[in-house]
Order: sequence, then structure tokens, then C-alpha cells
Amino acid sequence: MSTHYLEDFAVGHKYATASVRVTREDIRAFAAQFDPQVFHLDEEGAKKTFFDGLAASGWHTAALTMRLLVQGELKPAGGIIGAGFEEFKWPRPVRPGDVLRVESEILEVRESKSRPTQGIIKVRSITFNQEGEPVQVFTGSLVVPRRDSA
Amino acid sequence: MSTHYLEDFAVGHKYATASVRVTREDIRAFAAQFDPQVFHLDEEGAKKTFFDGLAASGWHTAALTMRLLVQGELKPAGGIIGAGFEEFKWPRPVRPGDVLRVESEILEVRESKSRPTQGIIKVRSITFNQEGEPVQVFTGSLVVPRRDSA
Repeated sequence: MSTHYLEDFAVGHKYATASVRVTREDIRAFAAQFDPQVFHLDEEGAKKTFFDGLAASGWHTAALTMRLLVQGELKPAGGIIGAGFEEFKWPRPVRPGDVLRVESEILEVRESKSRPTQGIIKVRSITFNQEGEPVQVFTGSLVVPRRDSA
Repeated sequence: MSTHYLEDFAVGHKYATASVRVTREDIRAFAAQFDPQVFHLDEEGAKKTFFDGLAASGWHTAALTMRLLVQGELKPAGGIIGAGFEEFKWPRPVRPGDVLRVESEILEVRESKSRPTQGIIKVRSITFNQEGEPVQVFTGSLVVPRRDSA
């Protein structure tokens, strides 16, 4: 699969990823390292919390989403380099056994005024679970090189 | 350190965290698992990229920020439960050896209309490196229980 330069992206283009299954052990291991809260660590304790059962850290979902994107169809030349987000939310929890995949759509493509060798694409990426329900939604800007700069 | 209910938060309150040093090995290990791109994995290869040297994955910075917040002064009763962000950016890369800490400020406190036992606080959290430069900035909403619901 070849990489994409700024000129290859256009509003409305869509890109898919593979999928990944999230296990109870994955959820606990990530949480132990980065988000040690009871609802991400302990099945029993989690029942008495907001989440009403074990749920993945949102940052775990974000990190898994990144891995799917890096290995997916989007493939900007120069890599996936996020400049920032204007929308970022977790509409529902990720549970043990959930299978996640990501769909990305290009919302905007523009050249950089300050750096003529590159541009910015605005992308909305939605991470879905196996029921087709969104578990993470973000709209972010990626830095992408122009082909004639390569 | 006691936990904070909705009634304990007020606009302008500030909360600190401890600090964490980010090693080359940390950067590579996180990237290998979640963001396998050359500029997060390979010192030499990274020199020829946008980052001009090894840099931490932004998601690694986000995950470390979360750990600092969970262990820091903010301490909402019920845990740190993010509903979403309206701003999220990485103004500069995190490099091997950087020492990160987080400062959070309450921007808004409001009761929930639909769920009377809880409310929402809007918080801006800035992650600084050892030079006092922001490496991550986000403004997000957290779900916090009311004291009289406890």
C-alpha cells in the first residue's frame, strides 16, 4: 500500500483499518501503567462506579485507535503526525471483549501558508465497537507533506 | 488527601501534580505497542523526519498526563472520568529525558440537568516539560458527583 501526499487527499475520502479485540488483561495492564482507577482495574469494584463494570481507560482506546490508524489505509507520507484536535469524545465505554475498528473521513485539505512543503488535512476518525456503536470520536488535524516536496 | 465533590470546585481553583521523567526506553516501549512510527522508535531514523529526532508519541504524553492527574491534587470523588474535550493539542514534542508535570485549572462548574446526583467541571490541564514549556494542552469536561448524593 503506497503512502499518500497532500495532493492525494480530498474531502469525503474514507479510510478503514483492521480491527483489534480488547481483552480484560489488556484493559487492566494499560490501567495499571497509566490510569490506575478502580473502574479500569477491578471487575468487582467497578460495579459500584459510574461505569457499572470494568471499562477501558479512554487513553487506552485512544492508543489502540492510533495503532489501528498507523497500520490502516490512511497512510500519510511522513507518518501520522497530529497537530491537535477540535473535538474528542468517548460516547460509551469500551468493555472486555469489545472488537474495535476505525473509520476516517477527510473533512478539509489545505496548503500551509508558512511551510510550502507541507499542508494540513482535517480528519474525523470514529472508533466503533463490534455493534457498530461509536466508542471514540475525534476531529483532528494532521501534517502531511506535499508530493513536490518529496 | 480527601476527594472533591462538585461543591468543592470553583472557577479559578488550581491543582498540581508530581512529575515524571520520560526515558528513551519508555518512549520506544509505548511506541512499539501503540504508535509504531519511526520518529517514536528509532533515534537515527527520527532525524530525517518532521520531528528531527526521537519524540514521544502524543498518546504516550496523554497517558502519562493521565497518570499524573490520577495521582495528583485534583481528586474528584468518583475518579477522573472524562466526558470529552473541546481543545487538545501538542504544541511541542516530548524528548528523551524530559520531566513532565501537569497544572489544572477549573474553568467552569455546573450541575447536570439530566442527572441531579452529579455535575460537570470544565478543566484546562497543561502538561509542562522541565523548561516550563507546554507539551500538551487540553480543555475537557469531567463528570463529578455532588456531595449530597454521596
